[in-house]
Amino acid sequence: MTTHPLDLFTALSADTQNTDVFYGHTTPAYWNMVGPFGGVVAAIAMRSVLMHPKLLGEPISITANFAAAMSQGAFTVLTRPVRTNRSTQHWIIEINQTNDAQQSQLVLSATVVTAARRSTWGVNDLPMPQVLPADSLKRAARTAPIAWIERYDMRPIVGGFPEKFDNTISDLSAEQASLTQIWLKDEPARALDFISLTALADVFFPRIWLRRLTPVPIGTVSMTVYFHASGNGLAQVGTDSILGQARGQMFTDGFFDQTGALWSAQGHTLATTHQIVYYKE
Amino acid sequence: MTTHPLDLFTALSADTQNTDVFYGHTTPAYWNMVGPFGGVVAAIAMRSVLMHPKLLGEPISITANFAAAMSQGAFTVLTRPVRTNRSTQHWIIEINQTNDAQQSQLVLSATVVTAARRSTWGVNDLPMPQVLPADSLKRAARTAPIAWIERYDMRPIVGGFPEKFDNTISDLSAEQASLTQIWLKDEPARALDFISLTALADVFFPRIWLRRLTPVPIGTVSMTVYFHASGNGLAQVGTDSILGQARGQMFTDGFFDQTGALWSAQGHTLATTHQIVYYKE
Repeated sequence: MTTHPLDLFTALSADTQNTDVFYGHTTPAYWNMVGPFGGVVAAIAMRSVLMHPKLLGEPISITANFAAAMSQGAFTVLTRPVRTNRSTQHWIIEINQTNDAQQSQLVLSATVVTAARRSTWGVNDLPMPQVLPADSLKRAARTAPIAWIERYDMRPIVGGFPEKFDNTISDLSAEQASLTQIWLKDEPARALDFISLTALADVFFPRIWLRRLTPVPIGTVSMTVYFHASGNGLAQVGTDSILGQARGQMFTDGFFDQTGALWSAQGHTLATTHQIVYYKE
Repeated sequence: MTTHPLDLFTALSADTQNTDVFYGHTTPAYWNMVGPFGGVVAAIAMRSVLMHPKLLGEPISITANFAAAMSQGAFTVLTRPVRTNRSTQHWIIEINQTNDAQQSQLVLSATVVTAARRSTWGVNDLPMPQVLPADSLKRAARTAPIAWIERYDMRPIVGGFPEKFDNTISDLSAEQASLTQIWLKDEPARALDFISLTALADVFFPRIWLRRLTPVPIGTVSMTVYFHASGNGLAQVGTDSILGQARGQMFTDGFFDQTGALWSAQGHTLATTHQIVYYKE
């Protein structure tokens, strides 16, 4: 394990008796307004699966449900392989923290599917958008005094963080109104793997802030990531920037959904991702 | 409860001691090649949440992980409210069946989020495609001697079930090559609700069959549905057909993902849905 902030944040120690139980402790490096950036909490669940002695294969999907903001301090991860087939394996993960009243409370539930992948016919029907290369763009300025934003080198092409919030509802087309395309990488640099890619799938700022240019209170409720690369494939990306894209779809009665994707600079679709987000007003 | 086949398939009885436990039994009405159609298995998980005495609000999302084909016979559902907040609630559901060796084995895991929705600002950035109305189209002919297909009135606009499989890889654009647009409703008619909408999100035949015109073995591994309508909103749709759309995104090394949506005939986005599917060869 390196001392990269992401590896420190997601560091887990295995229980000596029960192989399904892991222990960790938050660090401030990825803190958001209330609690840590959700992506790194999902990454804890992913790490627990990857560390589990019964692991079969590599991640195919993760769904993380954000039940409550994590507090600073210790947490416990319960990571159960609930079904192991010949080539696929199903996991349920629960992250708990003890509250002030000494009650254990759920902060994240997740399901993961892992599988032994085999080479097959394939095609990429989600080609990477043609955009300027990362090197030709400037790194986005820090938009708020929030720790986790500094953990990413973000270079927006379209749909960057709004320069001002003036309540102007976008008059762009439905396809464009909440679209962000952005080059992304860990800061400091860190070779891409399933841990960091899980977190990167959650870096897009809330689509409703772009759509309405109003910073209403929000919170991601559930996020899913489908992985379309092997661990070796991710390792080949190394510390290069990857291209992220996200767009809002339906906004109604306090919840909107987002669809997104992440590509290597060579145009391989590394992951597709979706989330549903609570918003107020 | 009516005697509609979907209500019979998803019928559950509550355990008299433990409010988290429900019992059911499969029926042949939704049988697929091996096991039942996945959509109705996910619908069992949804029904267990809706029946639970501690339910808060209405469904916002479901992720169903298909761990193994269900067998004909009895099953047990464990449905736990794992975190209840002021306006949102998180659920973990596990469906188990006892195998020939009298061992209880997981067939489905799911997570559901429910919430008390409030009226807010909203916009639909996923407008319904302009298509011919359901009444002007013919119902698709039965494509295989499979029970569940007869439980739906399906009227394809584009991307209907292939008339022949001749291994012709589509030369349509990436956006079109695996696109299906289809009017859907339960057969016999049944007023739309969260149970039926969950199942309807899984009716699209495998995108890879359309993309390659080759019926390779497949199996959905994980499906997510985000709900963008209230129970009252679904009830207003009643027994009308709804428009479904699905498209494949990335196909590689034995897994592809699909993105989709379901609209009322009036153009309300009722649900968005995603799945990742195993395929062979």
